[in-house]
Parts: sequence; structure tokens; C-alpha cells
Amino acid sequence: MNTYGAAFRVTVFGSSHGPGIGCVVDGCPAGIDLSPDIVQKDLDRRRPSSGIGTPRAEEDLVQMQSGVHEGRTIGSPIQMFIENKDRDSSKYSAFKRTPRPGHADYPAVVKYGPGHDIRGGGQFSGRMTAPLVAAGVVAKALLSTKGIRFAAYTRSIGRVRDEEQRSLSEVWDKVYGRSTRAASDLLEERMRTEILTAKEEGDSVGGTVRCIVEGLPVGLGEPFFDTIDGELAKLLFAIPAVKGVEFGEGFGASEMRGSENNDTYHFEEGRVRTSSNHAGGVLGGMSNGMPLDLRVAFKPTASIPRAQRTVDLGTGKEAMLKIEGRHDPCIVPRAVVVVEAVSALVIADLMMRGGYIARTC
Amino acid sequence: MNTYGAAFRVTVFGSSHGPGIGCVVDGCPAGIDLSPDIVQKDLDRRRPSSGIGTPRAEEDLVQMQSGVHEGRTIGSPIQMFIENKDRDSSKYSAFKRTPRPGHADYPAVVKYGPGHDIRGGGQFSGRMTAPLVAAGVVAKALLSTKGIRFAAYTRSIGRVRDEEQRSLSEVWDKVYGRSTRAASDLLEERMRTEILTAKEEGDSVGGTVRCIVEGLPVGLGEPFFDTIDGELAKLLFAIPAVKGVEFGEGFGASEMRGSENNDTYHFEEGRVRTSSNHAGGVLGGMSNGMPLDLRVAFKPTASIPRAQRTVDLGTGKEAMLKIEGRHDPCIVPRAVVVVEAVSALVIADLMMRGGYIARTC
Amino acid sequence: MNTYGAAFRVTVFGSSHGPGIGCVVDGCPAGIDLSPDIVQKDLDRRRPSSGIGTPRAEEDLVQMQSGVHEGRTIGSPIQMFIENKDRDSSKYSAFKRTPRPGHADYPAVVKYGPGHDIRGGGQFSGRMTAPLVAAGVVAKALLSTKGIRFAAYTRSIGRVRDEEQRSLSEVWDKVYGRSTRAASDLLEERMRTEILTAKEEGDSVGGTVRCIVEGLPVGLGEPFFDTIDGELAKLLFAIPAVKGVEFGEGFGASEMRGSENNDTYHFEEGRVRTSSNHAGGVLGGMSNGMPLDLRVAFKPTASIPRAQRTVDLGTGKEAMLKIEGRHDPCIVPRAVVVVEAVSALVIADLMMRGGYIARTC
Amino acid sequence: MNTYGAAFRVTVFGSSHGPGIGCVVDGCPAGIDLSPDIVQKDLDRRRPSSGIGTPRAEEDLVQMQSGVHEGRTIGSPIQMFIENKDRDSSKYSAFKRTPRPGHADYPAVVKYGPGHDIRGGGQFSGRMTAPLVAAGVVAKALLSTKGIRFAAYTRSIGRVRDEEQRSLSEVWDKVYGRSTRAASDLLEERMRTEILTAKEEGDSVGGTVRCIVEGLPVGLGEPFFDTIDGELAKLLFAIPAVKGVEFGEGFGASEMRGSENNDTYHFEEGRVRTSSNHAGGVLGGMSNGMPLDLRVAFKPTASIPRAQRTVDLGTGKEAMLKIEGRHDPCIVPRAVVVVEAVSALVIADLMMRGGYIARTC
Repeated sequence: MNTYGAAFRVTVFGSSHGPGIGCVVDGCPAGIDLSPDIVQKDLDRRRPSSGIGTPRAEEDLVQMQSGVHEGRTIGSPIQMFIENKDRDSSKYSAFKRTPRPGHADYPAVVKYGPGHDIRGGGQFSGRMTAPLVAAGVVAKALLSTKGIRFAAYTRSIGRVRDEEQRSLSEVWDKVYGRSTRAASDLLEERMRTEILTAKEEGDSVGGTVRCIVEGLPVGLGEPFFDTIDGELAKLLFAIPAVKGVEFGEGFGASEMRGSENNDTYHFEEGRVRTSSNHAGGVLGGMSNGMPLDLRVAFKPTASIPRAQRTVDLGTGKEAMLKIEGRHDPCIVPRAVVVVEAVSALVIADLMMRGGYIARTC
Repeated sequence: MNTYGAAFRVTVFGSSHGPGIGCVVDGCPAGIDLSPDIVQKDLDRRRPSSGIGTPRAEEDLVQMQSGVHEGRTIGSPIQMFIENKDRDSSKYSAFKRTPRPGHADYPAVVKYGPGHDIRGGGQFSGRMTAPLVAAGVVAKALLSTKGIRFAAYTRSIGRVRDEEQRSLSEVWDKVYGRSTRAASDLLEERMRTEILTAKEEGDSVGGTVRCIVEGLPVGLGEPFFDTIDGELAKLLFAIPAVKGVEFGEGFGASEMRGSENNDTYHFEEGRVRTSSNHAGGVLGGMSNGMPLDLRVAFKPTASIPRAQRTVDLGTGKEAMLKIEGRHDPCIVPRAVVVVEAVSALVIADLMMRGGYIARTC
Repeated sequence: MNTYGAAFRVTVFGSSHGPGIGCVVDGCPAGIDLSPDIVQKDLDRRRPSSGIGTPRAEEDLVQMQSGVHEGRTIGSPIQMFIENKDRDSSKYSAFKRTPRPGHADYPAVVKYGPGHDIRGGGQFSGRMTAPLVAAGVVAKALLSTKGIRFAAYTRSIGRVRDEEQRSLSEVWDKVYGRSTRAASDLLEERMRTEILTAKEEGDSVGGTVRCIVEGLPVGLGEPFFDTIDGELAKLLFAIPAVKGVEFGEGFGASEMRGSENNDTYHFEEGRVRTSSNHAGGVLGGMSNGMPLDLRVAFKPTASIPRAQRTVDLGTGKEAMLKIEGRHDPCIVPRAVVVVEAVSALVIADLMMRGGYIARTC
Repeated sequence: MNTYGAAFRVTVFGSSHGPGIGCVVDGCPAGIDLSPDIVQKDLDRRRPSSGIGTPRAEEDLVQMQSGVHEGRTIGSPIQMFIENKDRDSSKYSAFKRTPRPGHADYPAVVKYGPGHDIRGGGQFSGRMTAPLVAAGVVAKALLSTKGIRFAAYTRSIGRVRDEEQRSLSEVWDKVYGRSTRAASDLLEERMRTEILTAKEEGDSVGGTVRCIVEGLPVGLGEPFFDTIDGELAKLLFAIPAVKGVEFGEGFGASEMRGSENNDTYHFEEGRVRTSSNHAGGVLGGMSNGMPLDLRVAFKPTASIPRAQRTVDLGTGKEAMLKIEGRHDPCIVPRAVVVVEAVSALVIADLMMRGGYIARTC
């Protein structure tokens, strides 16, 4: 369903070609600083970057229709709405009949039938990540009162990979000054080239995003099933195009020995710390006080300007499909702020469920 | 919390050193064939294999205490109980003070306080996967009535990797005849050696499990947040030692071009099929009718017989810890049937939530 | 929280003095006829009636911002928004300090603190029933496709009671032509007098609403905890001013003998029917195929134009409070359509949870 | 489903004629005093009283199989099991064909089909209230650490009504010394006679239970939908034979004027109190600090030893049914401790959801 969270809850609605899209955030305590401006800032970070993104102009101006009064949350549900400016959906109707490879068209038509509103990808559209970003701003505002910070950045585009194990403060906020959300100017250059090369070849390319979270209380996460890593993974996989999620060493840990992978404990200024962070901040489904460290794999954009084989569900014959329009040759730079938002939504819910943040006075 | 599922629901209870462990499965329709024998068969597949597993004898005999009558489910909750035979927990009390690297001891003590029952790992113990396996048998029995089948096997141990893209029928049921749950005798040999080498060196080793699911209806999965991949990932991360989950090409897709990664459609005997399965059977959070294909990364067993650095939470000083007892040098072979079970629990819940299986007549 | 339902789900937001109020309805299948017009019709039935209601002009014009296309639902969440026209909230600030007897002011201030947005009653305002009515229209539209119909009417105002056991067709739709929602012109006259008398005496009066539901499948309701009567009661108590809920004979059954109260079975045109309906259509938490018959008790409006004793939370002394403004001397006539709506929301959710209505094709 | 609660959660299982019945209580913090003995004490209060109850011997000995160590909860799920001693279910098979008036037989057969395990009433049996009582003891033990106390008693049997507005301390614990759970010896006498008269006439009789809760924090209850009265009503209606629930004046309030019904505020030893408690401790879905005061209506026992008309679902003809066996002529005395338990389960969940009780250290 279109609702996530038990104690801090987000509901999304809308589709890319109706009147608009939006969300309702429920459970946020009163008294948190929140304004349309700080939401707008993150929404702007989700817009396509010049040169490497789709030139379609989506302004995504947010309206706050409830839950905030005089710049502060008031404890009741926060509703935000983003009007759709550009609603030319004529080109989408064909996809019900000749489903686009790599898109949700085919399973959606089987599930919902030919009456399904497939325009703009319907509910499965990347556009639905805009209200998630808006909701994520509320979560980040709430969590910042507890000293919890999030930083995501592009770790790889295609085969160009950032091999550094960067700290949060190294990347926080800064990467949004670079079109690819890379962690250095050199990587920006190389990643940008990787994207432009794919674009020039009429193709697209994937990549990975890393997200670091600092300031979590030790023990955050609910056993047995509502673990911190499990809940994060659940919501990260809801982002379109995500194909893998890992924590700490992740898949790399499967090739390691226990003596290498175990993070040993010591004291640092009276606090328990581990000398390495192979666990990515998670043990037994709970935070262990080290930075949470996760990576998300994005597949290459499915919409490419090449002719592709598909089926014609009307005639029962095979067909060729050429997708018109301008699409992002790489979704990863726009997804960075989405990964941050989604991570914040999960952490906010776990913090409130666990009683680390009180609902009320 | 210790409950998973909206329409097909499992609740686990117990810990490794109390009277026993068990589960309650709620929501299973009446009339499904189920007996203690078929549950026992899977529980036995979770037992350590001779030579490469811990020699601790856990018989894990299941008792069905409700929900089944004359070999069939009756529609009311199914409760299963496994008595604990071996309850020597004396050695665990030390871990509250000197937490084991790589285990949940430290976050658990912070979360639950020193009164926490840490014996045998408490709720975070691998032993809690036994009731999951039992519940998974109910899910598999239910789903088999709809032609849905699950097969998991060991894809890698340490650096020994099975490079074949095997089909379900190639591995189904057969791998349980091999101690490592490898897909071929040759791989059994090499993986077994990898485990024994680690063991001899007083170390442990990780690995990956692949799970294939066939027979899913096209469109299974609930947008936007309760996707098939997201729900599977959530529950897979609840298995102790899991550090990564990917579908289809997974992290590999992040290095691919769209033209390579997109699975194109064609007809096969009147059914829509894709020529490749890079998507691993999932598009837009829904099954697309191709086999579901997922991989899970397990870290090496945290308990190793070498002395490790840790902290003494009592004195506030650093300490050395040597973990006594016999532990599995590699958890992966025992985890294969757990991955199958957990996948089946998720699919059963989605099938019932989506109305593909009716609760009642 | 502000969300109800597992499979057919409503989330409400807004408060009486912010920009507006609204709801998101999730889970409604595609293809159901729905337009702003039919929603508006029920919203108008919630408006105060001339003479006996508050003269405050609330137009409550609904906007549908997502989920409907060309007069039909499209399967994605339906968002509806009602702008607040009249937002004079100056008079409410005093109630944080001198809480109104019979209102939620005092517990709300303790729960949410003095920063709480108490204007217009905040989340506890009767105004929040407007989005419930809007959501209820979606539920009724969905359920009408299965032949399920709802009819509510005013059964009593103060001591004026309708002693007839009326059938659904006798009251359906017709009562909205009478200002008190009474079932006959004579009762309209007497109930209207009861309200006007209270009003003239500077007082208010309570009453009861009866709701009848026909067309339910036998067996609707989820044991053990999600019973049809329990779920209805839960949501009915969420309507402000409700103090009691009963089914069939209700409290009267407690004085009866089993031989009187048991409804015996017989066949009627091949269908199993009971000769009486003391059970109100519910047995063991499930519908039994007879009309569902429930009654809801509303207390008299708490806001009365007389001076009342209260406390001054600022000075810690006792105080007198006179509530300005024009309030409904009796809330019952406006609540009739709310009871209908709330009943429809619960039944829609149970129908979808139980698989009686499929989410998808 | 068979699970209730978001943060303090109970799952029940079993049926009256399988191996046994039981429950799992999840979410209870560690360190709460709990032993089989105090659970047994409440289970014994649910047993039929000599002379006025069924003579069937159900010993209901509870076993605690997890979650408690050395007399204290350990934070993991608490499982309790009650073996069924008496399983003679032969007489129940007939009821699938000739459903008992007033019982769930008919809707259950339609819902679950003829394969349904109807023995002993299946899941709809009053016997399933035994695990609820056991779970309620855990809730009461937890809440007593916060000074919250529950007291229920029989307010009426048939037409014999206790007209006193008794305080909690007047009835607490004492009523269990009387067979009818009446609040005075005189009422015990009169209520006992009422039951015995019905019994002698081959009939049964209903009644009401009142429950008082003291010590609740002001503001307990979650707006808009998870109100304290709504959640209590939901679970109270899950008790077999309940037909009505009301708070404070309840249905009586519908006949009152606002000036009578409003509870005015004053200070008492520095605390805000109301001079009357017509609201029954609930305003706007939240506790207001006054004692919570609720009443529950029970219909007369459906099983009576007189021949009753019913249908034969096999032949499609009408039939006469005479129910053999010894049944309680009045269920109310046994239901008193069940109402207490169910109220405690709801309050425990709301206390934990609202953050009034922390899950962890």
C-alpha cells in the first residue's frame, strides 16, 4: 500500500499526469522547525542536472496544506502537495499494448487491467519519489533535533567507482554542488563523462549510491523482524530501479574470514567504538553506535532511445518499440537525495517506535 | 516486533536457553496438507552437517499444538513448539560484560540493560531461525497448491563461487544431499575444503545463497511500499549474519548499460516471456512472470576460536576475549533452508494480501 | 494515528483553522464510478440545517486531486481536499488556559503541551468528520457494486424516540429531506421542537443514530480480534461525542432470556434467514446475512452559551467560562451521514481484507 | 486476525478441542514480576462458580514456555500454553448441519466451509477467552508498575441491577469472593436467584459488567482513529456474547442536556478534577484523568436446554435442535475477569504506543 511506518508514517498519492502528487506525514511531534523553503531545497536537489539530465522542466513547487503553523509542526498530519505542470500523457497509452522493456508496464497491465492509468508510469513512476523527498525533509528536521545526520553521494556511475571510504562530514551537503553528486571534482568529471558517453551512444547507465548516518543511539531497531537493516532495505527497494542493498562490507563480507570481518571493540574518550566498521553500523538488526553505512545499486534507466523488441498484447505478435521523449541517461544523481530521504523516513519511524523520540510532551 | 505479515502472519517466541522456541502461523486457509513430518524434514535440513558444522546435538523435534486436525490445516492459528534439550547457558553470562565482536551483545546490552537474557544470543540467536523454518513449511505447503516452488542453494563459500546460472529444477531438493548445499559434487568438494581450511586455521568464512522462485502470478507485490523485492529484503535481513540482498543482476546492474540490462519481451507458447532475466523476475516492485532470482550475502560466523580484542563494560578497560564452545565455521549451508523458508513466508503473505489466495471458502 | 484500515485505508489531515482539511483513500480498486459531485452531495448532508444548526457558513467544496480519471477510480490513492473558508480562530486561544467542560481541551493541552494548535478544536474538532464523509462516499460507491447499502437516521433526540423498527428501504435517502434526519414527518416535528427548546433555554441536547446495512455476505468479519462489530465500534467511537455503541438488542439483550433473544433459523426462498433479528446481523463477530443493525449514542453538544465552572491552568485557580459563538444545539442531525460514512469505511476494509472484493483484475 | 496490539501485542491460538490453547505476548519490557502463579489466579477466576456455572471440569493449568526467567520478564515474547483435558467433541459435528440459534455456527460454516473445525465452537468459543485472561495478567503486571489498576464486577444479571456508582477500591479484588462477582452480599443473593431461576426454567439470562480503571495519565489515546474508547470497544466486542459498550453515561447521555452532562473542572489538592464523571474518564478519545468507567452488555447464553427451531443445511428443510450438555445459564460472572483482562491489554498497548512506558532501558 501507499503508506509506510508505524509511528512516523508517510502516505503518498498522485501520479505524474493527474492534477498533482503529494504526501501526508503523520506522527511528527509538535514544535519541529519546518517551512516550505527547506522542503523546496531538497526537491530542487532531485531535479535533473543541466547537461546530464532530462531537459523536461518540472518545477515541483511544494505547498504545505496542513500540519504546520508559524514555521513549526503542530502535531497533526502534515500534508504537502505538488501540482503537475506538464501533463502531456498522450505518448504513454501505447505502452499498455507494447510494454517497455525494463519498465513496470507489463506487470501493471496484468495486475490492474487495461483500465490502468499508465500515464507517466502511473504509481511506479520515478516522479513519485518527489513526495518521498518532501516527507524525508520532515524526518530529517525531526532527527536533527537528536543530532542524527544523513549524507548520501554517488559512489559509482557505470564502471567509474569512488574507491575512498569517505566520512559523513566529507560529503555532507557539499555533493549537491556537483551535477553527478560525486564526492570530488575529479570524480565529477569522470562520472559526467561516463553519463555523457552513454547518452551519446543512445544508451543509459547505472550506478550506486552510498548513504552514511551518524548520531544513532546504540540499540536502534526492533527484533526480530523490524530490524534497522531490514526496514531500510524494504523502503530502499521501493525506489524505482533499485536492484541491491548492502550494509558495511555487504557482499564483500561473504568472501571474508571472521578474523578479518569482525570489528573489535575499544574505548574512545569513554565511548565504546569499533576499530573498523565492516558491519556498517549494524549488529543483530540494531545500530551499534558506529556510522550506519549502506550502499544501493541502481540499474541503468530502462527508457533508451534505441528500438527494442517487445510484444504487442493486442495482436499477440512481437513488435519493435522506440521510446520517444527525453529521458535521464542516468538516474543516479537524482536518486541521491531520494536515498537520503528514504533512509530518514525509516530511521524516524524506528526512533519513534523505540521511544527514543516522544510523540507528545 | 516478533510478528511478520499482514494476511499470512508468523509470530516467533522463545530463546535458545529457555524451555523452548516456537511460532504461531495465522491466516493459513483450511484444508492444506500439513503434518509434523514435513515440518521435521525441513528442520533437519537446518541441522549442522557432519564434519563442517558444530557438533552440538540439537534435535529440534517439532510439536504441533494447534491449527491442524487429521493432517490438514483447519483455518485457525497453527502453533508449533520445539523443546530445548541442551540449555547450558553458563558461558553466555560473560558476554554482557565483554561483548563478542561481530555479535549483537553490545547493542543488546545497551538496549535492554544488564537484566537482558543474553543466553545463547537471546532473541538474536541463529536458533530463532528454527521456528522460521517451521513456519516456512506451512507457507510452502500453501503455495504449492498454486504451483509455486522454491529452491535455494549455496552459491559461494568464501572465494569459491558457483558461476552457473542454474535453473530451479536443477537444484530443487537435490542440494540437501550435499553437506554444503552446493549445486554439484565438484562444488561440494571445493566448498567443503574452503570451510575446513578456515576451521583448521581457527577461523570462519562467509558465503552467498541464491534462491529461485517459480510459478508466481504476474503482478504480485503491492505498490508503492510493499513491493515484492522490498518485503523479501526486509525479512531476509532479519536472518542473522545477512549483509546484502540483490535481485537479478543486482549490484552488477549498476555497471551495465540499459541496452544490455533491459530484458526484451517475446511470446513463448502464447505466454509473454523475457529473453534474459537480468531483472530477476521483478519490475516496479512486482513479479513479471519470470523466475524470481535473489542472492543473499552472509558474513563469516562471528564466533571464532581465536582471542579477540574487546571492552570490559564493567571496568571500562579493554580486554581480550576467547570464545569457548564449538561453533559452525560457516553458517551458509545451514542458512539455505532458512532463506527458502523466509522467502516463502513473504510470498505467502503477498499472495494472500493480493487476493491470489482466498482466506476462506 | 490518522489512518484507518488494512486493505481499504483512509488517512485524514488538516484542522479547522489551517488552509484546509482532507483525506487520502488508498486501496480502492480501479473502475469505480466516482465524481466530486457525488462526494459533494454527502458533504452537503453534513451541513447544519436551517434553524436548528449553527448559522456559520461552511461551504465545504471538495476538490479531487488524485486517483480519479474520467469519472472513474484508477486504482491509485484518491486524495480529496476541502479548503477552509472561515478561519477566525482568535477565540480558541483562551481554551488552552481555561479548558471547556466536555471538550478535549484539557487532555489535549496535557498531551501536546501549550504549543498545541487548539484552534477550532484541533484534530478533535467535529470538522474532521467532513473528510470522513468524503472518504465514506468512496466506500459506498465501491460497496454498491456488490449490492451493499447503508441507511442511517435519527432514532432519538433527547427523550423523543422513534419506537419503530424501520427497514432500510423505509428510510434510505429520504431522511435527508428532513432537517432532523427523522424517519417521519411527525418525528421531525417533535425532534425539531426538542432541539429548539434546548436552544431557547441556552442548552444543548443529545440523541441516537441508527444505521442499517443490507447486502453483506454471510461470514464477513475476521476472528478473533477484527470482528465486524468490534471494527465498527472502534471507528464509531472516533466520531466526536459518541458515548455508546450497540448491535441488535444491545444493552436490552442483557435483560433478556436466551429463549427470547435467540434468533431461530428458517428458509425463505431457499435462503437461510432468522425469524427475528435480535442479534443485529452479527454472530461470533461475523455477519449472519440478516441486516446489520447498530445504534450510536451521542452526548449533548459540549459548547453551550451558559457560564460554566472551569479551571485557569495559568493561575491555578478556578474560573468561569462563557463560550461565545454559535454552536449546534444538537449535533445528531449532522452526524447521521457521518455514521453512514464511518460504517461504510469499516465494511469496505473488511470486504477487501476478506477477499470479497479483489484489489486488482 | 488473531493478533491485537501495535506495541504491546497478543496473539492467541488453539481451539477448545485440539491439544490446547494459548497465547504469545510480545512487547512487554524486561524486568516485570511475572509467574505462572499469578496467571493461574486469574484463570481460576474465569472458572464456573459452584451451582450457577457449568459443572464441566476445566482445570486450565497454565505453562509458561518462554519470555520469563527467574520470576521476571526478559523482554522477549512470553508464550503461555493451556492443555485441553476434556476433548469430547463428538456432539459438535451436528452443528455444522443444524446450526445453533445465537451461535456462530452458521456464519462460520458459510465462511470456512464444511471442513471447518467447529468442535467446541472453534475459534469463536468462549474458551478462547482463557488465553486472553492469561495475557491480561501480563498487561496488569506491567501497568501496576505505573500505578494503573483495574476493577470489574457484575453490574446486572437480567433485571437485577446494581444501582450504586461504586468506586474502584470498593470492588477491587473483593468481588471474586462472590459466585456472581456482585459488589455486595445482597446483590449476590439476588443475582444468584436470577440465574438459578433461569436455569430451572431451562433458560439462560444476560447481564452487564462494569469496569473501572484508575491511574491513567491524562491524554492517553491516539487521535484520530486509535482513541482510548474506540480501542477498548474493539477488543471488548471480541469477547463472545458482547452486544453493547458504553462509557460514562453512555446511552443515558443521549437523553441529557449539555448543562447536565458536562463535567465541570476544579482543583483538588492541586490536581485538575471534574465534579462529576458523566464522561467516564474520556474526552476526545483521550483519558481526562478521572477514572475510566465502562459498561459492557452480554446477551444471554445461546445454548439452552430447550428445543429450538433451526435449519438442516444438508436437506434444506427446517428442523428442531435440542442442545445436549451442561452450559452456563449465565456467562456474566465468568466474563468479569475477561473484561478486566481485555481492558488491560488495550491500555498496555496504548501506554506503550504513546511512549508512557518505554520498551527498553
